[in-house]
Amino acid sequence: PVNADRIAEDIDALAGITEPGHPWTRRAFSPLFLEGRAYIEARMKAAGLTTRMDAAGNLIGRRAGTKPGLGTILVGSHSDTVPDGGRFDGIAGTIAALEVARSLGDRGIELDHDLEIVDFLAEEVSIFGVSCIGSRGMTGQIPEAWLTRTSGNRTLSQGIAEVGGDPSVLLAQKRPDLAGFLELHIEQGPVLEAENKDIGIVTAIAGITRIEITVEGRADHAGTTPMDRRADALVAASQLVLDIRSRAAEQAKTPGHFAATVGEFRIEPNAANVVPSKVVLLIDGRAEIRSDMEDFLAWIDGEVKTIAADFGVTINAPVRVSDNMPTPGAPVLLETLERACETVGAKHCRMASGAGHDTAWIAKVAPAAMIFVPCKEGRSHCAEEWAENDDIAMGAAVLFEAVRDMDKN
Amino acid sequence: PVNADRIAEDIDALAGITEPGHPWTRRAFSPLFLEGRAYIEARMKAAGLTTRMDAAGNLIGRRAGTKPGLGTILVGSHSDTVPDGGRFDGIAGTIAALEVARSLGDRGIELDHDLEIVDFLAEEVSIFGVSCIGSRGMTGQIPEAWLTRTSGNRTLSQGIAEVGGDPSVLLAQKRPDLAGFLELHIEQGPVLEAENKDIGIVTAIAGITRIEITVEGRADHAGTTPMDRRADALVAASQLVLDIRSRAAEQAKTPGHFAATVGEFRIEPNAANVVPSKVVLLIDGRAEIRSDMEDFLAWIDGEVKTIAADFGVTINAPVRVSDNMPTPGAPVLLETLERACETVGAKHCRMASGAGHDTAWIAKVAPAAMIFVPCKEGRSHCAEEWAENDDIAMGAAVLFEAVRDMDKN
Ligand SMILES: NC(=O)NCCC(=O)O
Ligand SMILES: NC(=O)NCCC(=O)O
Repeated sequence: PVNADRIAEDIDALAGITEPGHPWTRRAFSPLFLEGRAYIEARMKAAGLTTRMDAAGNLIGRRAGTKPGLGTILVGSHSDTVPDGGRFDGIAGTIAALEVARSLGDRGIELDHDLEIVDFLAEEVSIFGVSCIGSRGMTGQIPEAWLTRTSGNRTLSQGIAEVGGDPSVLLAQKRPDLAGFLELHIEQGPVLEAENKDIGIVTAIAGITRIEITVEGRADHAGTTPMDRRADALVAASQLVLDIRSRAAEQAKTPGHFAATVGEFRIEPNAANVVPSKVVLLIDGRAEIRSDMEDFLAWIDGEVKTIAADFGVTINAPVRVSDNMPTPGAPVLLETLERACETVGAKHCRMASGAGHDTAWIAKVAPAAMIFVPCKEGRSHCAEEWAENDDIAMGAAVLFEAVRDMDKN
Repeated sequence: PVNADRIAEDIDALAGITEPGHPWTRRAFSPLFLEGRAYIEARMKAAGLTTRMDAAGNLIGRRAGTKPGLGTILVGSHSDTVPDGGRFDGIAGTIAALEVARSLGDRGIELDHDLEIVDFLAEEVSIFGVSCIGSRGMTGQIPEAWLTRTSGNRTLSQGIAEVGGDPSVLLAQKRPDLAGFLELHIEQGPVLEAENKDIGIVTAIAGITRIEITVEGRADHAGTTPMDRRADALVAASQLVLDIRSRAAEQAKTPGHFAATVGEFRIEPNAANVVPSKVVLLIDGRAEIRSDMEDFLAWIDGEVKTIAADFGVTINAPVRVSDNMPTPGAPVLLETLERACETVGAKHCRMASGAGHDTAWIAKVAPAAMIFVPCKEGRSHCAEEWAENDDIAMGAAVLFEAVRDMDKN
């Protein structure tokens, strides 16, 4: 029911709006980002949608329904990227949503509900150091303190104003009209490709918990200090990294998505001939089932004590830098999406999202769910990120059928 | 036979010549360094020494002997410091050497040999990224390529000229007149203090071998990539760090000083939600016995293959960034020093130096040896570095006796 060529044309056009030499970079709040949005807005208008910018800087294209007051079906994703990566991350979902509206128009189908296509502002961690600004902002979930975060000489508040939002009313935003929200996204993982599925119906977006651990040893001379008289922070931190990996791998074998990664790791003084005195490491934990994360947090508290004792270093209580709960997809929408897959003949499965998404924020105020389409080798947030256009078109067709289904129920 | 108060006075005076707020910083080539040297030169002159700067920028105070042509006994150390550390490292040896000349003068003792007290230029890794410039330079061991190394807009060649050296003849320096060299230095390790000794007679300066290893994995999304489908460079590198530590600790239990430390460790992309794709680590290895280092190098070559296979990462052959042989102390001087310890009643032991020193470079062209004095808790290269003045004075007395002994033999 959708036009695959039109999807490819738009995704390719947006890929052309990138920092030269840095495919595919279109950072939120940058001139290129605004250029990309101008393209999307023009395509929304060409599809007969009424465009507007909401207070949170989300670009919205609206198609009025036949029964005013019934509520709004919202579909969309984001058009910003991480640095040096993201040809499909966000964009695939934004264009697939637009294609749903175009296909409805092509077929002269009127919905009872209002339909809105959204390009959320700054889903990725932006220059202001936080993510999902648009989806949080649309639903009044931006902490006030964030507005004064700065990047260069701009505050987030100014950044939002510059893209066309209205920070003065941002904190009071509400969307009581939302009847439901759907998002298509590339999987950003290898599962659908490996299992030869067209569509992943997302049962839950994993909770993300970030834990900072500081290992303090003693900076000694690497040449003169006997091996048995050291308090080497790097050696102790290395044991911690290995134990976290083992523990997470065990947890991952039980039902429910689970992952834990040490992605940030800084050592001091980081000098060739000095025994490392300090390592600060950040654990990124993901759990579909909250009790798995709670078990992990309890385990890590004990683990650091064991390592401190074994290696003669000091490790204070792990600091929970952030801790978000898992967000289940709305059960009624999971069924809707399953029916839609059957209708279009898509091979589908249920799976969790290990990554965070705008859907998690909209889900706090309205029924929301998302679908994944496969991406090549699970690569994402890098120049190699790739999704086949036919897979995206299949996903757009699922959205099309699901939106019609939601409209009737 | 030496004046402990005079030693304390000089060491304290030099401690006063430090970057405010950064005790005890007197970096080679800085204005403070030149200020420190002006103090030392004035004290050399006050002791009746004839001062000069050699082509390598070494400050030398000379006391002519009674038998011209017999050769020169050289004693000294360095007066530059690492950033934020080094109240005694180098300075203790420079001032102890000066005190030997002063004590000879006090007693009206004439030596047959010429005696030179030296403050070597830039023993520590300097702003030009290399160390032991003075001791290498005095003996024609500076690689030509070093002269064009830059720091800011200065070359090393310009730096040496600015402190008073002569780069135009630097590469051709030779000291065929050297009859012997002695250096006193703080131990920079915990052994003498722990074993309640006054003097360590250094059997050998350990060879220093630096090995760079690059672990390459794959940057995947930390949220979505299943634990069993990762090539996590940090996890693999952590195993390597632990195995290096275990192997070095085993080696250290056999005769001959041995240590291996991973002091530099950089991960990429170092982002919270990305599986680390790359770790570059630098091993600092020290061996008193060369075959221990050769065994270690062979072991590491095999080890990285095992880890690459076990963790699904790529590790190319370890790169030997630098590789210096151990330098034994001249046996005749070790005996001279032992006799000197007996004469002054110092509790002494033989031990290796795990740290590199100027002595290692002078030893390539003349009989050379060094003694260690205890330092507090083995701390060095930090503001807490401390040595008791009585211990330094005891060391100066040993130098005094040893120099007289060398003069007669
Ligand atoms: N979808 C996505 O990559 N979100 C970024 C936040 C995260 O999951 O790490
Ligand atoms: N003595 C000393 O600290 N030398 C620095 C070079 C080293 O041994 O790492």
